[in-house]
Amino acid sequence: MSWEENVRKVVPYTPGEQPKINNIIKLNTNECPYPPAPSVKRAMDSFEYETLRLYPDPNSGSLISALSDYYNVPSDQIFVGVGSDDVLSMAFLTFFNSDKPILFPDITYSFYDVWADLYKIPYKQIPLDEDFRIKKEDYYIENGGVIFPNPNAPTGLVEDLDMVEDILQNNNEVVVIVDEAYIDFGGKSALPLIDKYENLLVVQTFSKSRAMAGMRIGFAFGSKKLIGYLNDAKFSFNSYTMNRPSLELGAATLADKEYFNETCSRIIATRERVKPLLAELGFVFPDSSSNFIFAKHKTVSGKKIFEELRSRGIIVRRWDLPRISEYLRITIGTDEQMDTLISALKEIV
Amino acid sequence: MSWEENVRKVVPYTPGEQPKINNIIKLNTNECPYPPAPSVKRAMDSFEYETLRLYPDPNSGSLISALSDYYNVPSDQIFVGVGSDDVLSMAFLTFFNSDKPILFPDITYSFYDVWADLYKIPYKQIPLDEDFRIKKEDYYIENGGVIFPNPNAPTGLVEDLDMVEDILQNNNEVVVIVDEAYIDFGGKSALPLIDKYENLLVVQTFSKSRAMAGMRIGFAFGSKKLIGYLNDAKFSFNSYTMNRPSLELGAATLADKEYFNETCSRIIATRERVKPLLAELGFVFPDSSSNFIFAKHKTVSGKKIFEELRSRGIIVRRWDLPRISEYLRITIGTDEQMDTLISALKEIV
Repeated sequence: MSWEENVRKVVPYTPGEQPKINNIIKLNTNECPYPPAPSVKRAMDSFEYETLRLYPDPNSGSLISALSDYYNVPSDQIFVGVGSDDVLSMAFLTFFNSDKPILFPDITYSFYDVWADLYKIPYKQIPLDEDFRIKKEDYYIENGGVIFPNPNAPTGLVEDLDMVEDILQNNNEVVVIVDEAYIDFGGKSALPLIDKYENLLVVQTFSKSRAMAGMRIGFAFGSKKLIGYLNDAKFSFNSYTMNRPSLELGAATLADKEYFNETCSRIIATRERVKPLLAELGFVFPDSSSNFIFAKHKTVSGKKIFEELRSRGIIVRRWDLPRISEYLRITIGTDEQMDTLISALKEIV
Repeated sequence: MSWEENVRKVVPYTPGEQPKINNIIKLNTNECPYPPAPSVKRAMDSFEYETLRLYPDPNSGSLISALSDYYNVPSDQIFVGVGSDDVLSMAFLTFFNSDKPILFPDITYSFYDVWADLYKIPYKQIPLDEDFRIKKEDYYIENGGVIFPNPNAPTGLVEDLDMVEDILQNNNEVVVIVDEAYIDFGGKSALPLIDKYENLLVVQTFSKSRAMAGMRIGFAFGSKKLIGYLNDAKFSFNSYTMNRPSLELGAATLADKEYFNETCSRIIATRERVKPLLAELGFVFPDSSSNFIFAKHKTVSGKKIFEELRSRGIIVRRWDLPRISEYLRITIGTDEQMDTLISALKEIV
């Protein structure tokens, strides 16, 4: 026998490229084109490096307290992690522990099936309708848990709270996770529903609307019970997940509400400006409520456009997957970056 | 049925306290009493906060490259994580995937059984001998994997490389993990053995000897194959575990070798100075090769000493566990802190 026989073998998630080439227009991982809030810079300037010798607060008190004040949610109903991926991964491990399959859309965040495989969780991918919409009735079947993003990725489509609540009403025996990574760019958060549904976990992140992808901060809201279970699992995995800079700078991120609103508004304005320009060029796309547009061209193949853009120094995201191989997911950058994109697309299509 | 039935329920690890009271002498979590290297301060001062809007390099290139240069190990034989807890947790998930029990000492790092429980890994705790030594023959039995710290925690005792190699020779069908969190304070690392034993993982950390507990950086060395499997699991869990500050400041930590050597030497000198002082006061203890001493008093109970120290603002670590409930694990602080400790102990015993 070889030691390799007992290794857990998995097909890992492939993140979008992080190219090191300068002068590239990077529209492939839905980062924010604007810097983090000035309050983050001030927190960095006043950070005392000597404190790094000490472990961080394992309860992430300062960050959770800032989130508690900002969102008006009690501290014991908040969980934080190393990006929403860490939060979601812990939630899969903690809550999806049944022999019945968990349910999620066929076109969705491509990490869901990877986590399910890693933890040996059975799953069933529910097809979106032909307009890439979630059909709520499909989630009425027996299952071991439900997860979907709202707005969905990579489609960018948001569902209203009535639909979220309908899925909750029909799934009170399992945990339902609403992954709201893009909620600040449109749509209504399910946060107000956590007091009504003990089994609802709402997950958000600082990586998109708050321009802190490099700091890795995600968080979740839920009932006290749900958050308690999640914390038990987290403390069984790694007591100190959040390092000192992420706790201090994370809390500071929330201090500048005006800057945050301004940044989101600019990104939304750019997105709405770009939509008709793409349509004019022959692109079709679901009406995005996020910081990206998921578009395909009526005649030119997604692969060709992807490669032609790349040769011009513009990187977008594309998946060789059923139903979406013709689509490109284009992050909303600055107005200038989007103008360069549109000029390049004019040449290509 | 309730949603709670499918929750993974665990008894979490309890980390040492991180008290917020000032003027406390904190000798309970084996932190370094000296600040991180000056090169860390320089890296912090030159860190560009605007880059936080971008995801970090998912491959942790800069940190791995610095480790590769420092330890003279190829990059594809190095894995990094959010503290050695993250590295070890991932290793448990990846490698201990058998129906046979994994083996570790009965007195050891108290996270091992927590991880085993979390991932539902069967385990067998092998008693140390009466002098708290590992008996290598006990590890010759059939098993699903082996892990032990060297030096062991909380005993502080180091085993020589011959013993480590003997255990490897008798366990070539499973993965063997040597947890070297305290190796820089004494003993020889098993690192040179990774080219000889494809199934050996050597885990180290920046949290102790490098005064970076607050930054959460752990790392592991192993064969290319072993590290490959670990990376697959990591990329199935969270692509971006290491945030930008930890990558930049982590790499900078290794830049100042002289400071590192000086810090370790000071801690070792303090430890050796304190040993006879404790013995004079009636304490007995295994001969520590780490940055702590695991001591019990000949007549006064561990609980009493723990509480009396606490009332004097000195915090050490104690476990209410079989065989070790009379012992205190005392971190080596500065010479001044240790003098205060010795004065307090004189009053108590």
